[in-house]
Amino acid sequence: MLKTRFTERFGVEHPVMLAPMDKISGGALAAAVTAAGGFGLIGGGYGDRELIETAFTEAGNQRVGVGFITWSAQRHPEAVEAALAHNPAALMVSFGDGEDLVVQAQALDIPTIWQVQTLAQVRQAMAVKVDVIVVQGQEAGGHGMDRGLTTLLPAARDAAEQDQIIMAAGGIADGRGLAAALMLGADGVMMGTRFWASAEANGPDAAKQAIAAAEGDRTLRSKVFDVARDADWPWKYTGRVVGNDFSDKWHRDVEGLQADIEVQRAVYNASAEDDFSTRVVIAGEAVDLITSVEPAAKIVTDTVEGAAKLLNGAKGYLSA
Amino acid sequence: MLKTRFTERFGVEHPVMLAPMDKISGGALAAAVTAAGGFGLIGGGYGDRELIETAFTEAGNQRVGVGFITWSAQRHPEAVEAALAHNPAALMVSFGDGEDLVVQAQALDIPTIWQVQTLAQVRQAMAVKVDVIVVQGQEAGGHGMDRGLTTLLPAARDAAEQDQIIMAAGGIADGRGLAAALMLGADGVMMGTRFWASAEANGPDAAKQAIAAAEGDRTLRSKVFDVARDADWPWKYTGRVVGNDFSDKWHRDVEGLQADIEVQRAVYNASAEDDFSTRVVIAGEAVDLITSVEPAAKIVTDTVEGAAKLLNGAKGYLSA
Repeated sequence: MLKTRFTERFGVEHPVMLAPMDKISGGALAAAVTAAGGFGLIGGGYGDRELIETAFTEAGNQRVGVGFITWSAQRHPEAVEAALAHNPAALMVSFGDGEDLVVQAQALDIPTIWQVQTLAQVRQAMAVKVDVIVVQGQEAGGHGMDRGLTTLLPAARDAAEQDQIIMAAGGIADGRGLAAALMLGADGVMMGTRFWASAEANGPDAAKQAIAAAEGDRTLRSKVFDVARDADWPWKYTGRVVGNDFSDKWHRDVEGLQADIEVQRAVYNASAEDDFSTRVVIAGEAVDLITSVEPAAKIVTDTVEGAAKLLNGAKGYLSA
Repeated sequence: MLKTRFTERFGVEHPVMLAPMDKISGGALAAAVTAAGGFGLIGGGYGDRELIETAFTEAGNQRVGVGFITWSAQRHPEAVEAALAHNPAALMVSFGDGEDLVVQAQALDIPTIWQVQTLAQVRQAMAVKVDVIVVQGQEAGGHGMDRGLTTLLPAARDAAEQDQIIMAAGGIADGRGLAAALMLGADGVMMGTRFWASAEANGPDAAKQAIAAAEGDRTLRSKVFDVARDADWPWKYTGRVVGNDFSDKWHRDVEGLQADIEVQRAVYNASAEDDFSTRVVIAGEAVDLITSVEPAAKIVTDTVEGAAKLLNGAKGYLSA
């Protein structure tokens, strides 16, 4: 229904991508997004080969891509090899200098996607001639950096070649976000949190309901849960989560958490899986725009139809 | 050229407001924005009555509004009185519970504007029936909070009455930002940093050139310069600035700065006014989109024409 550089290049119906969320974006969700006319990507996560094989099996005949956390994938070349062996619809990298992985995929004629968080990274990705640059704003759920989408997206467009495909990520959950992204120079959007709260997402329903109920004011970028969960992330990447008792206690005292880490990690691990006063719910500011868990296909359709309606009526702002 | 709830309600030509930047938005700049068909607001700053009188004198016959820092204005009722005596085009408040100031202006039939940084504040402003809510994203220069415009703006629209006028602020510097803001549910934009780098802004040319040269990646939200300059801001509001040697040294060690404040404040105050390795340049992430100092009228016109072109062509994204 919407035509952009992205839909033309990839031959898909809608300029809507699924963010390859670690574990959450399994084969079922990625396949559902692709089947609905979007672009599904499974989460390669921390380079767990078995997880990747399972996801591709679950995706069945639907064409899906795979996304990796760059610094982690570089420690697990066997997981990347395994993913590339499936001839994915694309290889996506994010969080680190992914040039080696991009070159590896390019040698196999597999389309490449590089998600960036700063303007400096836009230039890095351009230099390797990736097919798609995803510009991720700080509004995003999960790991990211500090720049807002409103400025980083048009700045990326100004820095890029005319025909560079650029997708917008972070804070987008409906047609308004898609239409706005197009105005700012994007060729479409990548959505994470919105698809987390979908029927097909690979996670407990209680977490999905928590996302539907959460308020954006309550989310924050923090190091707390990386430390608590012993996730070895470079310090410059913070993770956006829904704040809870555990983050209230430690967010402004990460050093204190580190000093007492054995006890606190035990506390964290001993909490029930659906005890979200302690357990992390990873989600972006877009929780404000999400009030129910929906099938992935409905999310794709609603987003595109909402954007189409706005774009179709945009001329209405022009006075005679 | 663009028609929105805002232009209709205020009888102005363009849905573009000048942010009432402390000292920077003097009478000349505010008058230039109004004269160009936008909505000029002088900066009431920290409640300096003399500054306000001078600004109104400089604005001459152009209708301008006045904007206050809420918590500071409440300490300086005489400055608010003085401003209201000029029958300004609007009274704007931001940073704190401004209900008393809003009620004071409403009693005089002066239109009211409340700038908010969270969804909770949107509800607070709505409850007092302000004429205009300005939703400020974290991308903004100067003081603000953490929420991104991409999510806070549509969330505010969802929370507000159908006819509530909502303007977008933070990270907007051209027609793309204006068009995107309209798609997200705004009735127009308020721009600060873009007008700071204008011919009429009340500040040294060296600072304007520094803004035109700066990169968004280099900006950050920090407490450093409030502490160094002894500005008594509530701790939850950080200020976005262009990072420099001074902030590099202290941003991650504000306690260290406080511990050595007498010496460091002397260092700061001893630096030359155009020594931006020490002196603060207050600016938002939108510096990426600003490459030259321009007359305010050209900024207004370029922004509106850019948006009009995008909105006019928006149907082009729809496939048959």
